[in-house]
Amino acid sequence: MSIAFEPMRSYIFTDLAKEEYRHKLLKWHMMHVEDSISQFRPYCTQYSFYQALPLPPDSEAFGPARFHLCEHYWLCNTFTEDFKNKAFCEVMPREVLRWQNSIPDDDGEENMTGEAFRATTGKKGGRPFIFLFHPLSWEVDLKGKERTREDGANYRFLFTISWPDGVAEEDGEKWLFEEVFPKFVEMPEVTRLITSHTYQDINNSKYSRVVEMWFDGPEEWHEACVVKAQDIKKPSFAQTDTFPYLTPQFNFASIFIPDIPYSDNYTQYRGFITKR
Amino acid sequence: MSIAFEPMRSYIFTDLAKEEYRHKLLKWHMMHVEDSISQFRPYCTQYSFYQALPLPPDSEAFGPARFHLCEHYWLCNTFTEDFKNKAFCEVMPREVLRWQNSIPDDDGEENMTGEAFRATTGKKGGRPFIFLFHPLSWEVDLKGKERTREDGANYRFLFTISWPDGVAEEDGEKWLFEEVFPKFVEMPEVTRLITSHTYQDINNSKYSRVVEMWFDGPEEWHEACVVKAQDIKKPSFAQTDTFPYLTPQFNFASIFIPDIPYSDNYTQYRGFITKR
Amino acid sequence: MSIAFEPMRSYIFTDLAKEEYRHKLLKWHMMHVEDSISQFRPYCTQYSFYQALPLPPDSEAFGPARFHLCEHYWLCNTFTEDFKNKAFCEVMPREVLRWQNSIPDDDGEENMTGEAFRATTGKKGGRPFIFLFHPLSWEVDLKGKERTREDGANYRFLFTISWPDGVAEEDGEKWLFEEVFPKFVEMPEVTRLITSHTYQDINNSKYSRVVEMWFDGPEEWHEACVVKAQDIKKPSFAQTDTFPYLTPQFNFASIFIPDIPYSDNYTQYRGFITKR
Amino acid sequence: MSIAFEPMRSYIFTDLAKEEYRHKLLKWHMMHVEDSISQFRPYCTQYSFYQALPLPPDSEAFGPARFHLCEHYWLCNTFTEDFKNKAFCEVMPREVLRWQNSIPDDDGEENMTGEAFRATTGKKGGRPFIFLFHPLSWEVDLKGKERTREDGANYRFLFTISWPDGVAEEDGEKWLFEEVFPKFVEMPEVTRLITSHTYQDINNSKYSRVVEMWFDGPEEWHEACVVKAQDIKKPSFAQTDTFPYLTPQFNFASIFIPDIPYSDNYTQYRGFITKR
Amino acid sequence: MSIAFEPMRSYIFTDLAKEEYRHKLLKWHMMHVEDSISQFRPYCTQYSFYQALPLPPDSEAFGPARFHLCEHYWLCNTFTEDFKNKAFCEVMPREVLRWQNSIPDDDGEENMTGEAFRATTGKKGGRPFIFLFHPLSWEVDLKGKERTREDGANYRFLFTISWPDGVAEEDGEKWLFEEVFPKFVEMPEVTRLITSHTYQDINNSKYSRVVEMWFDGPEEWHEACVVKAQDIKKPSFAQTDTFPYLTPQFNFASIFIPDIPYSDNYTQYRGFITKR
Amino acid sequence: MSIAFEPMRSYIFTDLAKEEYRHKLLKWHMMHVEDSISQFRPYCTQYSFYQALPLPPDSEAFGPARFHLCEHYWLCNTFTEDFKNKAFCEVMPREVLRWQNSIPDDDGEENMTGEAFRATTGKKGGRPFIFLFHPLSWEVDLKGKERTREDGANYRFLFTISWPDGVAEEDGEKWLFEEVFPKFVEMPEVTRLITSHTYQDINNSKYSRVVEMWFDGPEEWHEACVVKAQDIKKPSFAQTDTFPYLTPQFNFASIFIPDIPYSDNYTQYRGFITKR
Repeated sequence: MSIAFEPMRSYIFTDLAKEEYRHKLLKWHMMHVEDSISQFRPYCTQYSFYQALPLPPDSEAFGPARFHLCEHYWLCNTFTEDFKNKAFCEVMPREVLRWQNSIPDDDGEENMTGEAFRATTGKKGGRPFIFLFHPLSWEVDLKGKERTREDGANYRFLFTISWPDGVAEEDGEKWLFEEVFPKFVEMPEVTRLITSHTYQDINNSKYSRVVEMWFDGPEEWHEACVVKAQDIKKPSFAQTDTFPYLTPQFNFASIFIPDIPYSDNYTQYRGFITKR
Repeated sequence: MSIAFEPMRSYIFTDLAKEEYRHKLLKWHMMHVEDSISQFRPYCTQYSFYQALPLPPDSEAFGPARFHLCEHYWLCNTFTEDFKNKAFCEVMPREVLRWQNSIPDDDGEENMTGEAFRATTGKKGGRPFIFLFHPLSWEVDLKGKERTREDGANYRFLFTISWPDGVAEEDGEKWLFEEVFPKFVEMPEVTRLITSHTYQDINNSKYSRVVEMWFDGPEEWHEACVVKAQDIKKPSFAQTDTFPYLTPQFNFASIFIPDIPYSDNYTQYRGFITKR
Repeated sequence: MSIAFEPMRSYIFTDLAKEEYRHKLLKWHMMHVEDSISQFRPYCTQYSFYQALPLPPDSEAFGPARFHLCEHYWLCNTFTEDFKNKAFCEVMPREVLRWQNSIPDDDGEENMTGEAFRATTGKKGGRPFIFLFHPLSWEVDLKGKERTREDGANYRFLFTISWPDGVAEEDGEKWLFEEVFPKFVEMPEVTRLITSHTYQDINNSKYSRVVEMWFDGPEEWHEACVVKAQDIKKPSFAQTDTFPYLTPQFNFASIFIPDIPYSDNYTQYRGFITKR
Repeated sequence: MSIAFEPMRSYIFTDLAKEEYRHKLLKWHMMHVEDSISQFRPYCTQYSFYQALPLPPDSEAFGPARFHLCEHYWLCNTFTEDFKNKAFCEVMPREVLRWQNSIPDDDGEENMTGEAFRATTGKKGGRPFIFLFHPLSWEVDLKGKERTREDGANYRFLFTISWPDGVAEEDGEKWLFEEVFPKFVEMPEVTRLITSHTYQDINNSKYSRVVEMWFDGPEEWHEACVVKAQDIKKPSFAQTDTFPYLTPQFNFASIFIPDIPYSDNYTQYRGFITKR
Repeated sequence: MSIAFEPMRSYIFTDLAKEEYRHKLLKWHMMHVEDSISQFRPYCTQYSFYQALPLPPDSEAFGPARFHLCEHYWLCNTFTEDFKNKAFCEVMPREVLRWQNSIPDDDGEENMTGEAFRATTGKKGGRPFIFLFHPLSWEVDLKGKERTREDGANYRFLFTISWPDGVAEEDGEKWLFEEVFPKFVEMPEVTRLITSHTYQDINNSKYSRVVEMWFDGPEEWHEACVVKAQDIKKPSFAQTDTFPYLTPQFNFASIFIPDIPYSDNYTQYRGFITKR
Repeated sequence: MSIAFEPMRSYIFTDLAKEEYRHKLLKWHMMHVEDSISQFRPYCTQYSFYQALPLPPDSEAFGPARFHLCEHYWLCNTFTEDFKNKAFCEVMPREVLRWQNSIPDDDGEENMTGEAFRATTGKKGGRPFIFLFHPLSWEVDLKGKERTREDGANYRFLFTISWPDGVAEEDGEKWLFEEVFPKFVEMPEVTRLITSHTYQDINNSKYSRVVEMWFDGPEEWHEACVVKAQDIKKPSFAQTDTFPYLTPQFNFASIFIPDIPYSDNYTQYRGFITKR
């Protein structure tokens, strides 16, 4: 009995390869909820899906995910020996990997387990599988701490960063905290800015930081992140010519979400009951 | 005690004026659910929201709604004297009408009641408020009656028609049933085709028919409704040059939805509980 | 198969003989919910309990109930032959009748059925059992129809009237509609005034009208119903010297309630799960 | 809009061909719940499954079902033209018919619709599909009307009768009401006896009556229905030598159930969430 | 990742300044539930509201709260750096502080945060904000351990003590355990007596002990705590002349509650759905 | 504050003395759920009942329980001083012990507490009370790790072992892992084999191991565990002549269950609402 109490939150950014698959991926997730809850309910305290809002203009450079954000809250680290055996193997059809843009449409046919999938993604041209563990609460509050739920609906821009190979995390963070964040804090379009480091050790993630910036809507996001961000100085390790200067999807990945989940799976899930 | 038992279904097609408002309109609907349930639960047996899937290419001619479909099932006609008094007046801020594209952004400032709103929409350049009452079950089943829930996720194209002024309903329907539907029935892209007339008397609706066509996805929809539909003969009363030959939003209005609601409000609604 | 569709609402005003019984009566109702739901769920669409707010000063003359209001919405009249047999007889211990102030504390010992209880109450000095059936929606809206759920919490004064023996209902109503209601409509303390007649035939009720008046709080109620109501003219059939001029509990009965139930039994009931 | 308000209850007696299938049939029903609720929620007000208790000794002559009782409450007759089209065809794999003992194990392979299934059952040696519509409440209360939910757990013997070909219903009922029921009413083992006629017209059912008898347990059932029932006089139309003198499953069918469902599907169903 | 597993319970005693505010405070709490659940669900396992029963005669000396008891169960101490940042600032209008009797009605106008509120209360003549953390289970069981949920409804008197300035906790507890509790244990009116120390360090609380005594009702409470308690010896540090000899609200605070919450917020909360 | 985080699972195998008691024991558990949830919800994260499937032929030698499996997931060890006091004593009528086969029918009359019951069972000829604590996830996965929820319904054979007095656990386990499990792994009838040791210290349990083997159904179980198991070598410490060579109920106890619980008590429990 050596499981440590390590409460934390995790995010999965789920992409969508094309619109042809959106309703299919939605249906699949409904079945997947049952698979997931069956497994982790005793040690996962919250499990929600937030719809990815439509991409605003000029957002491709930010590597935005197009399907949804999956959020979990855990009581402990489940990537250990204590959790290595599961009563049921997770169902993960290969086509779901295509729908999620993890493997290309012309990839081979055989199915694989959820575990094998996670090891594969990002290898063959698909988007990397982004699964981030981080603190229960936000570590750093840079702007907007007085904002309440009554101050209007928030357009949330959630992003994560994997510094390019060869760049020390401290160098990346220096640029982020001394050049990037101060600029955003000054912009009136940014109503909230909160951030945490990630627990990379949990699942050997390459992504070291998660950030949430709130706006009144996509027009304000565009003004801040596309127009005004031109004033943000390019770092020495830039991979592209415009902000955020990092390779989309691989080094800078994001998602646009509203305040409220479309399914808080523990309290709202009721199976796949359809329209007549 | 003279309320008649008239079980029926209704649809409201809710549009979105621009993406700037999507998350705001979502938040507003959460508050509205409480207002609605408080009023109609004793005689409304089901109440769900289906997200509008992103518009496929070339769909503007079909007058698609961009926010959601609101579905109710009623036990009786509530547009009568028996229901004229409500304990609470429905909250309906003017900005919501703008978000829903019912009135233009530069319209006046004062708020109005839900009832007044419904009388106003469609008048000043905004999209008409589309609220359709129709039979509990589909009246006519033209294709796909053997389809089960296990046959894959469905991309549903739901539309309604208001025949142009001066066109007799029977003439419009003749074209629809003898020219339009037979063409669609033959197309392999169409997996299901079901339709009902509407109960126009209930709320003096101009829309006389509701149709649901299912596809595997938006690509199949495009192939059928844009490409192959070019073969559908133009009716004498055509208002436009391409199928569906009717003024979008006003004479032909539609929405693209998945099989499952994002909120079955009676069983899944839990207030406005947000992401931390 | 001759059950008519007669959707309606009903109210039961439940009193409390003394504070010694409040927590007992609360516990008993939890068990009773199971008994009730087991019986009527197929044809009762809503079932809620609203706590009786503490009595304001000088309210005894209004015959206020001190425990709760039980509200049901029915699809049909259940006081007919079609419903005469129940799988289970309702549990109704005699002490509950005492707790509810329906029979005096020194009454005999034997238990009785719920049906027998209803026939007995009000006979031996206890408060009559008040069970009112009335229209689904309020019939007459005299003031405040523009009030929304956002206009603040409401202090609701709900009352019912049984005209004294020998007084024609039309004479009583004439006084009510021509003398009483106009006075209240003019008072700024009254924010809402709605009323319906009752369906006395359903259960041979003596009470012919139900009224709801809303206030900002008990101070406003007192100013309106005790102080200003002194200006309301005494009717020829007065039974007492002050407004409402009718015998409390027997000819004028009331309850003070908030907007929201403490238990919406269909959606919130979960058995008797206690504090540890 | 001509759907009549005809509130009623229905029972389906679901058998099990052998124990090899019990857990399979259970899993299948979970999927079926989604199919069913998707279709009928707007007009079906309650939907529950009661487990069939293990068969007591000597009960084979009573044609007992071994899986479960499915109970619905309807607002209207759904076997009409108004309900003939369904958005989804019900999933009904042929193996489920075998599991339910409706067709023999060596029957052909192709699947069929739920509708086709109902037309087929009972034809090829399998147990007939028993689907009974009857009044909302019990019509006749012969014994035990004072019994409450606090009087102990009840062992309920629910049965239905289809009089043999050539026997007039009134002759069958004469024997039942004048010979059979009086005998049971006298036995102390019988704690409750309630019965209704069925609405045979709804679905052309051959079964004309439904009866519920309660006991303290299977030992009391055996004493009453096997031992003491030997005193019940054999009718002229007897098909067998012992009570109930009717061909099991075909002319006399039954099920043993507890008071409480194992799944009240509207309030308790949450999909197929499994043991880890 | 240094959050320690420290499961504990907490109580908040919420007072009511006057009856004019009861329904307002009730409505406000409904909105507050959403704010709270949004924040703490991942690490708070239970969250309930128990109504304050009406004050019995002569109870003012016990500093009773008049609105409700808010109970939480936590997995960890949330008064640490790990929880210092919240996505949303808690909504806490100044008028709510007045309704709760934390600040006087004539206090200034500006709103403040929940955090600021807690620092302010008790300063300007209002009742102190009482928020007590204590063990998951009761530490000391002095009477009634054999009592079950079937032994009747309990009238629970819950109180907390803050020893006067200059009095050592051990001196106060000596009086409590050697003089007070033994007297209550002997009284037949007391059916249960359980107590725990509080975790004062968590939130710098001045209150060091929490006690629950159960009675059959308020009459028994009065007999025990007012009449018979006259025999309890006055301690040297007495602040008043009668039991409990401590300054009400500040040094001795209490609440009277039933066994069952009026809202178990995780399982029963459904938003603010009102009476029609 | 010294409660350690020790997440674990527990099983209780509940037997049934005879069929006469099945519906009674079911009803009793419904009341017991309220008692249990009231106590342990703050630290128990999951609580479910799985029905015991009917016993297959020749299973008596395996000591199978006939009522249900009760499963809990705990966050900590509750058999410590920290949990010694409970607000309510658990209700445990003596007749329930008889129904569960823990004491014989002719045992004395007085009731006892749940705690006392657990100390008594197994003493007087009844079946021992089996309450097993073990790791959150299965420790050893011997066969079938690729099995998913879509591979069909599983017939689960869950068993536990208490090695005979004088047999060292390592000797028993050597036989189990080197002789028994390898034989089962080879059999095609066995689709899954997973096992964990138990935490005997928690509650001084005599049972040291828990095993789950899955089959397609009882016929496959019989072929494997009765027919083919004849090839399993008898250990030196055998207590009987046939596999499993251990005294049923006392040294080898088991239960047959399906994949899904009949009541997931936290999400599905709604009190004792009955059939009408």
